[in-house]
Amino acid sequence: MTTDGVPQRTGNNLDPWYANYAERAAGFAASEVRALFAVASRPEVVSLAGGMPFVSALPQELIHSSMERVMRDQGPTALQYGGGAGIPSLREHILDVMGLEGIRGASVDDVVTSTGSQQALDFVAKLFLDPGDVVLAEAPSYVGAMGVFRSYQASVVHVAMDDEGLVPEALRETIAYLRGQGRRIKFLYTIPNFHNPAGVTLSAARRPEILEICRQNEILVLEDNPYGLLHFDEPAPNALRSLDPEGVIYLGSFSKTLAPGFRVGWALAPHAIREKLILAAESAILSPSSFSQLVVSEYLSTADWRGQIDTFRGVYRERKDAMIEALSEYLPQLSWTNPNGGFYVWVTMPDVLDSKQMLPRAVRELVAYTPGTAFFADGRGRHAMRLSFCYPTPEAIRLGVRRLATVVNGELDLIDTFAGTGSLQSPTTPGIELAPPSDLK
Amino acid sequence: MTTDGVPQRTGNNLDPWYANYAERAAGFAASEVRALFAVASRPEVVSLAGGMPFVSALPQELIHSSMERVMRDQGPTALQYGGGAGIPSLREHILDVMGLEGIRGASVDDVVTSTGSQQALDFVAKLFLDPGDVVLAEAPSYVGAMGVFRSYQASVVHVAMDDEGLVPEALRETIAYLRGQGRRIKFLYTIPNFHNPAGVTLSAARRPEILEICRQNEILVLEDNPYGLLHFDEPAPNALRSLDPEGVIYLGSFSKTLAPGFRVGWALAPHAIREKLILAAESAILSPSSFSQLVVSEYLSTADWRGQIDTFRGVYRERKDAMIEALSEYLPQLSWTNPNGGFYVWVTMPDVLDSKQMLPRAVRELVAYTPGTAFFADGRGRHAMRLSFCYPTPEAIRLGVRRLATVVNGELDLIDTFAGTGSLQSPTTPGIELAPPSDLK
Repeated sequence: MTTDGVPQRTGNNLDPWYANYAERAAGFAASEVRALFAVASRPEVVSLAGGMPFVSALPQELIHSSMERVMRDQGPTALQYGGGAGIPSLREHILDVMGLEGIRGASVDDVVTSTGSQQALDFVAKLFLDPGDVVLAEAPSYVGAMGVFRSYQASVVHVAMDDEGLVPEALRETIAYLRGQGRRIKFLYTIPNFHNPAGVTLSAARRPEILEICRQNEILVLEDNPYGLLHFDEPAPNALRSLDPEGVIYLGSFSKTLAPGFRVGWALAPHAIREKLILAAESAILSPSSFSQLVVSEYLSTADWRGQIDTFRGVYRERKDAMIEALSEYLPQLSWTNPNGGFYVWVTMPDVLDSKQMLPRAVRELVAYTPGTAFFADGRGRHAMRLSFCYPTPEAIRLGVRRLATVVNGELDLIDTFAGTGSLQSPTTPGIELAPPSDLK
Repeated sequence: MTTDGVPQRTGNNLDPWYANYAERAAGFAASEVRALFAVASRPEVVSLAGGMPFVSALPQELIHSSMERVMRDQGPTALQYGGGAGIPSLREHILDVMGLEGIRGASVDDVVTSTGSQQALDFVAKLFLDPGDVVLAEAPSYVGAMGVFRSYQASVVHVAMDDEGLVPEALRETIAYLRGQGRRIKFLYTIPNFHNPAGVTLSAARRPEILEICRQNEILVLEDNPYGLLHFDEPAPNALRSLDPEGVIYLGSFSKTLAPGFRVGWALAPHAIREKLILAAESAILSPSSFSQLVVSEYLSTADWRGQIDTFRGVYRERKDAMIEALSEYLPQLSWTNPNGGFYVWVTMPDVLDSKQMLPRAVRELVAYTPGTAFFADGRGRHAMRLSFCYPTPEAIRLGVRRLATVVNGELDLIDTFAGTGSLQSPTTPGIELAPPSDLK
């Protein structure tokens, strides 16, 4: 199509359309987790990096028979477009699921299903975030959520957490500091249960206090709860949404309690917001997959899904125990969180170690993890890493942690040798890195 | 959670979060098509309004057996997260599908699957559109695309089309006019085949000319082609993408040739753009449904999908013929397009009639259509309507058009009676409404 005498497209050799992108596209960068998926997919590597649920523990014949019944009884509906808010029967089941976390009296009209809860995150961000707006999030926070907020040109500001979750005083100080700077805070994004990546749970005592701080400051709460039902001992405290229906958008997902391959998640939103969420959903995809939704709905109607979640709990508890035992045995000089549910342990190393720099050596030793920097918007996390226990077997987890110990100890030996001190620095920030407001400047 | 002495949220009684939305949310409004879906779902109404394919013509046992094989042979993969670009085997099949429209030599790496091609539209818009940017589109254009562009605060400017599709001279003049106004044009959005809603096809002769105009003006072309394979007589000309791989993003879909319930569509993009599309996809949904993609892939591997599309062609050709015959018989005073494929006929009425005002009367007569204003960003289309022949049977179509004639003739009688002239105005803009650049001011 090149014609002599006609001007060439601007841009550059790599991309003729380089000059045409929207401003927000500058924030589209491959996440560290993404690059790791490729590495971790090699079978000889023990991956403690991804967040893939162990779907082989599912009763596949029950899923299969759900599909058969959907095709037999509702074939044309399953194959057709549906409504933008999702299939009503599924949304009724979702009310039952949320009832297990204390959410009662919600209307099926206020549930909007989505292509995984990730998409509900995207809809909420699209609805609320102007360039320059601030989203508050735990320090550290879910890498995929921070990517969404960045894709709408918002800034993530972290709020300190400790073993009881988000620290109320840190939240107050951070809000005051940002307000003093004239920043516009749009919402608090929080994962109260079995946090990704930190593994901690917001205590029952702090929940009303966090909500009250947000209410006083007119800050919406975005409660992301994919792991809530996957507790190991006692259940997580009731959902934030159960305490403040008008102040919280709740996000839920079947990706961890059933299977991510269907891509079925949901938002439960205050009534006025849910109207706009449906419009955002219709604009983005017209309607979510009728087929996927009906299969999940049929499964929930006919299978013992509560028993199935119990099975998952047992699987993940055993793997978490294997990981904690292996860390105690092979890496006693590090510190870590000990989660009561979910998929992740957050490990803090001595300050002399850098988890991102160390990763290539770890992969050479055939173990992968996610460097802590992936979970901070501000460059922190170098001395930390996220270890996932959801997918590998307990034996693989032990092997992976042993390999990780080889890498960590090798690094420390090297540093000792070069520094010539012979002493091992202990972590300055045991457990979770704190983010005092002074760090925000 | 209300506490005395604590300030209440701002906003209003209907929505406490009213003051918190992003600027772009002001553009989120329910489309006219959306309201119609509710009306048209009543069984006694003949709906000529929606764009639902006739999925009952599908061999459901073949889809069922595809599912069975997927669960039997690839169950854990189907239930798991996948890659952001989509399942490789499906993307290979997509190359074969596009080969039928002259697209050859494309790389499987440059195909990105999405939750219906609607979502690919959303990704492209997110990647390219800043507030105030202009998207060029045919007059009229697809309501769902204009909604996406508006949701990123871009403006749609229409370019005239006639029975051969987009008018090259009008495109040139519109670009020159907008450039003179200092507007930034990001892309031309076009549906070259069996246009929604106009029913016309861009002629082979005009295709290189349209591409050349865009190339000279450094305007990317977004080619939306959900209906291309659903031709009634001769095939549509080769895709625009086949003529300019670096200048076109091509969008395809299985929603019309297979079934929308899977929500599987795709984009084929220039290499550098496709990298960013994958990042946009991962941000929005992590990965599309593995299960849906594998079922579609398995169906394409094992079923006679070309024969199945032939069956659809026969079904839709018969329905289109029924609609054109009924229009000729019952509404000879109107004008309409006669499509060679796709789902839609565009009907133009006398200027004295208003299709939006007339709609409630039509629904009272138990027939529904989409008013022409839905397909314009600038208020035009009042004297036009879109009639869909895809879903109702030929008998229902005849009945629906007869009911429509009762409404139209009743309106004209009423106008004649009140005007006392006894003469019927003929349409001033037969066929498709033209958009001269002078209309843009």
